[in-house]
Amino acid sequence: MSLAMSKEELADYLAAVFPQVKEDFAIDDLTEDTITMRLLTAERHLRPGGTVSGPSMFALADVCVYAMVLARLGPMALAVTTNCSMDFMRKPEGGAQMVAKCRLLKLGRSLAVGDILMFSEGSSKPVARATMTYSIPPIGSAAASAG
Amino acid sequence: MSLAMSKEELADYLAAVFPQVKEDFAIDDLTEDTITMRLLTAERHLRPGGTVSGPSMFALADVCVYAMVLARLGPMALAVTTNCSMDFMRKPEGGAQMVAKCRLLKLGRSLAVGDILMFSEGSSKPVARATMTYSIPPIGSAAASAG
Amino acid sequence: MSLAMSKEELADYLAAVFPQVKEDFAIDDLTEDTITMRLLTAERHLRPGGTVSGPSMFALADVCVYAMVLARLGPMALAVTTNCSMDFMRKPEGGAQMVAKCRLLKLGRSLAVGDILMFSEGSSKPVARATMTYSIPPIGSAAASAG
Amino acid sequence: MSLAMSKEELADYLAAVFPQVKEDFAIDDLTEDTITMRLLTAERHLRPGGTVSGPSMFALADVCVYAMVLARLGPMALAVTTNCSMDFMRKPEGGAQMVAKCRLLKLGRSLAVGDILMFSEGSSKPVARATMTYSIPPIGSAAASAG
Repeated sequence: MSLAMSKEELADYLAAVFPQVKEDFAIDDLTEDTITMRLLTAERHLRPGGTVSGPSMFALADVCVYAMVLARLGPMALAVTTNCSMDFMRKPEGGAQMVAKCRLLKLGRSLAVGDILMFSEGSSKPVARATMTYSIPPIGSAAASAG
Repeated sequence: MSLAMSKEELADYLAAVFPQVKEDFAIDDLTEDTITMRLLTAERHLRPGGTVSGPSMFALADVCVYAMVLARLGPMALAVTTNCSMDFMRKPEGGAQMVAKCRLLKLGRSLAVGDILMFSEGSSKPVARATMTYSIPPIGSAAASAG
Repeated sequence: MSLAMSKEELADYLAAVFPQVKEDFAIDDLTEDTITMRLLTAERHLRPGGTVSGPSMFALADVCVYAMVLARLGPMALAVTTNCSMDFMRKPEGGAQMVAKCRLLKLGRSLAVGDILMFSEGSSKPVARATMTYSIPPIGSAAASAG
Repeated sequence: MSLAMSKEELADYLAAVFPQVKEDFAIDDLTEDTITMRLLTAERHLRPGGTVSGPSMFALADVCVYAMVLARLGPMALAVTTNCSMDFMRKPEGGAQMVAKCRLLKLGRSLAVGDILMFSEGSSKPVARATMTYSIPPIGSAAASAG
């Protein structure tokens, strides 16, 4: 269990392959089995009333597990989301950034599972919970949509 | 079991309260317990490679159940997403619009549940499956984030 | 798309490899992408009050997708549950058998997904909804717990 | 945030209202927002090969959140499972008891959410992950199947 990419290498790689990541998300912290990322909240992420939208929270959870898998397997890795479950538990606080704490629960040969708690920055009560499963096609496989 | 709003009334109401709905989604069909909606695919909904992104599919599933609840309960209704599960099963076809067929499985006093199958238009194989639960606060309740 | 086993072959095979299936479940109907099974309700499946328990409904949903995968791939197939989502929507009717209608949504090289609606026999309102994902290790693979 | 019942009161109450709990489950530890319970593994919980079955893991996750809600709200509380998501990540170790660590993520007026990690005793790698949502009908409400 060791990291294939540092936090800086991971951020650079994500910005290169997913340009939208650079504008929407930042990596706060990376360890061998956890990553903390934040949504760089902009108008397009908000619902009327100023709270972060569900799709933006989905995107934040999704990018956490994707980034965690890359950090462990390196930039050659392909991985596609196959399953997601989310619970929306509290209204996000208006004006606060959304911070996601992700744990990698499994990194197998073909499946990775991570779970995520999301908080309005400065609050200890979770706004949402998510679990994401990624399918990891064999390296060299043509198909990124394995499974 | 009858509709509180017609398809046209529902579309007008959604456009008024969620301006982004007008640009992103259209209602194809509405019955007492089903709704068919489509994503009006634009550049911002796509991943590199031209396929529809996960967050865009989440948003499509979410708006279906929200619209279905409104259609049944009328525009006074408040409803907030509390749970979501999704399975991403096939790569969307590039260039095709995404169509979601939603069934309302339950409309109780405090919870509504709908499930959704999503297809690339013209294909019969589902790209994704979703279930969304909405919490319905009592009418007149101050809190839109009940539960 | 064709069946590798008939309904009778499937029932015999399940009874041989999972003795508890014989006592707990019966196959009502099998097509190329659907299966209908029922819980042969006994005292051990009930909660106080006489309604079918959650674990019994989980077991019914799980066996449906397992049986469907076997019916398509044949008795050599290994398959292990990797993910489940369930929504419990109505109280089961006391004294009625529980019937599950399952559709196979995907049968890929390494993942299968089925969804299930469960009804108290004689009622058209779903008691519960479930989705089950199975991981299918390559035939000949030593590990039944792939992924 | 304080407990309405001690660990001993909770165990006695569960044994009285759910006789099967007494034989199947034990409470290891209880705090204001966590509970640790174990499956008292017997032949009926096992699959061929000696590993704990999926329905038994579902039952363990379910009883954890139910017990946690009771511990906080007291024995008058009614609560019914409305949603579950589970990920099965590793094969349980044969012969080892299954231990579940549950955190209460939300205890609202009408919904409670808990998540659970399950381990084969003595191992630090999670066998399964679950989230359970309970609906809590108003005290005095006739209907235990609210929502």
